[in-house]
Amino acid sequence: MATPTNHQIRLAARPVGMPTRDNWRVTDEPVPALADGDVLVKTLALSLDPAMRGWMNEGKSYIPPVGLGDVMRAGGVGVVIGSKNPAFREGDHVSGSLGVQTHCLVPAADVRRTGLAKIDTAAGTLTQWLNVLGMPGMTGYFGLMDVGQPKAGETLVVSGAAGAVGQTVGQLGKILGLRTVGIAGGKAKCDWVVNELGFDACVDYKAGPIKDGLRQACPDGVDIYFDNVGGDILDAVLTRINRKARIVICGAISQYNNTTPVKGPSNYMSLLVNRARMEGIVVFDYADRYPVAIKELSGYLRDGRMKSKEDIVDGIDTFPETLLKLFNGENFGKLVLKVADA
Amino acid sequence: MATPTNHQIRLAARPVGMPTRDNWRVTDEPVPALADGDVLVKTLALSLDPAMRGWMNEGKSYIPPVGLGDVMRAGGVGVVIGSKNPAFREGDHVSGSLGVQTHCLVPAADVRRTGLAKIDTAAGTLTQWLNVLGMPGMTGYFGLMDVGQPKAGETLVVSGAAGAVGQTVGQLGKILGLRTVGIAGGKAKCDWVVNELGFDACVDYKAGPIKDGLRQACPDGVDIYFDNVGGDILDAVLTRINRKARIVICGAISQYNNTTPVKGPSNYMSLLVNRARMEGIVVFDYADRYPVAIKELSGYLRDGRMKSKEDIVDGIDTFPETLLKLFNGENFGKLVLKVADA
Repeated sequence: MATPTNHQIRLAARPVGMPTRDNWRVTDEPVPALADGDVLVKTLALSLDPAMRGWMNEGKSYIPPVGLGDVMRAGGVGVVIGSKNPAFREGDHVSGSLGVQTHCLVPAADVRRTGLAKIDTAAGTLTQWLNVLGMPGMTGYFGLMDVGQPKAGETLVVSGAAGAVGQTVGQLGKILGLRTVGIAGGKAKCDWVVNELGFDACVDYKAGPIKDGLRQACPDGVDIYFDNVGGDILDAVLTRINRKARIVICGAISQYNNTTPVKGPSNYMSLLVNRARMEGIVVFDYADRYPVAIKELSGYLRDGRMKSKEDIVDGIDTFPETLLKLFNGENFGKLVLKVADA
Repeated sequence: MATPTNHQIRLAARPVGMPTRDNWRVTDEPVPALADGDVLVKTLALSLDPAMRGWMNEGKSYIPPVGLGDVMRAGGVGVVIGSKNPAFREGDHVSGSLGVQTHCLVPAADVRRTGLAKIDTAAGTLTQWLNVLGMPGMTGYFGLMDVGQPKAGETLVVSGAAGAVGQTVGQLGKILGLRTVGIAGGKAKCDWVVNELGFDACVDYKAGPIKDGLRQACPDGVDIYFDNVGGDILDAVLTRINRKARIVICGAISQYNNTTPVKGPSNYMSLLVNRARMEGIVVFDYADRYPVAIKELSGYLRDGRMKSKEDIVDGIDTFPETLLKLFNGENFGKLVLKVADA
């Protein structure tokens, strides 16, 4: 095998507000020769996620920040093109924390940290492995099942409904017999969520006051709110929750690029009035149970009860601009950066 | 029995911000003759609680607002001075929602709604029945036990530590083997909480940045935060919580007289980072279990493991000003309005 060149995108500076080109630095370096235990993965596609914005910040979080000068962290799928690790063979498809680079060399000691694992392309396409069967799907599954504790007949509201986590949460809610209401931006996304994914309704937050939309779409109030966005939408939903409601805090994309302090939910005292609960979810806590969720969700993909949509942008060098689609609400479906053909 | 005059304080207008004299109207009316099933209670003492501020506002809450022109709602203790209800006899001591009035006539149909119940003055003094054995004690007990789910060795922080709910929560925490840290305003309250009630530490929010105080007092972080105050203190505690922390939302006294929107907790995303939970408590949900809690707490009062402090102000006509002590942080211990001698 000729030594390939690894094309990488590194974090050059921590952003203030929305990231720009200046926050990134592109490097090319030869892939070193494989040592014992190494696996070399050729990146095929990367998952672009709102959480990446948080990883660019300094400070304590659920995961250490990306170091200045380091290759940007990203989950991805790829193919093994060299292996001195008996657990992986050339040609294996894998997923893991590959980083924003064309090649990822994983020493044996890092297999666990990067979550490198073989994937079964019969259970889902490569991009589905970044979506319903990947981190967003796992986040939606365990956030809804474990934190949301859904019961048939309840009303579930999910924001970012056309996004990666939202589509899993809403479709799972429907399968479980909940009235399922999405919140998304724009008619196209809302129509798709209702007509293609089978949500009962979808509130377009760009079309008018979110409170009015929620009132219409949730005549019996809200029992579970799966929040991916925070800000004014969280505050609006808080005015509609039922007794003993569960609010799953999964993200707050509206706040990630703030240069002013985060807007806390003014209506949080609705938690008291309604004896309700707001609770955070971090998907990594459920790693031991991913196989169970993947088995269930791939079954739904196979029997057609669950659909998935990916918004695929081609070319690793578009990364700085493509990432921003998440924050501008421009992505329609799970945002994927295609890096190479299989 | 000569017909007594009932001296009453009624809600005349809904306050904007801090209540003033103009929000109240004083009336005197003769107590009507007792009909079948009626109980006539002479009010001895009333409980003044932060929640009363909320009851003065219009709008949906966990309990209907006090109607304009109605006698102000208040819990109290009294003595039965007339009864045509076989469940009550003259001379019985009772507690219940008596209202801010010198006499309370309770028809049989209203016994349940007002929570009228005989109290055992051997289990606690009359004012303890408004404190540890009353609503504040019940709120602290069930908020800590059911929502907080304490485990020995954990760190418990409680704000309003010298107040009615706070003193119960903190002392109960100590009895259960938790490291217990209060937050209170001023050296006198903080010293009392530590030296008399046995808290491990108390942070004086008036003495310096609350974050610094919390860092010192909670070297192992915070597992349970029992919040009575909201605002900046809630935000500061959110920066110190541990994984799987529980935040009990009991009140937000710092926000009750706001004329601007409530300050939501800017640091609520700490719930996500720490997989933590914020949950509301309304004491009425636990009414069926009050007897169990009263038995346990009166045992602690008897064996000296729990102390109680009441701040008793004399005279029903001082009500408008006395109530404000709660919001200015001037009360030291459970605020009680004495209405008549036993």
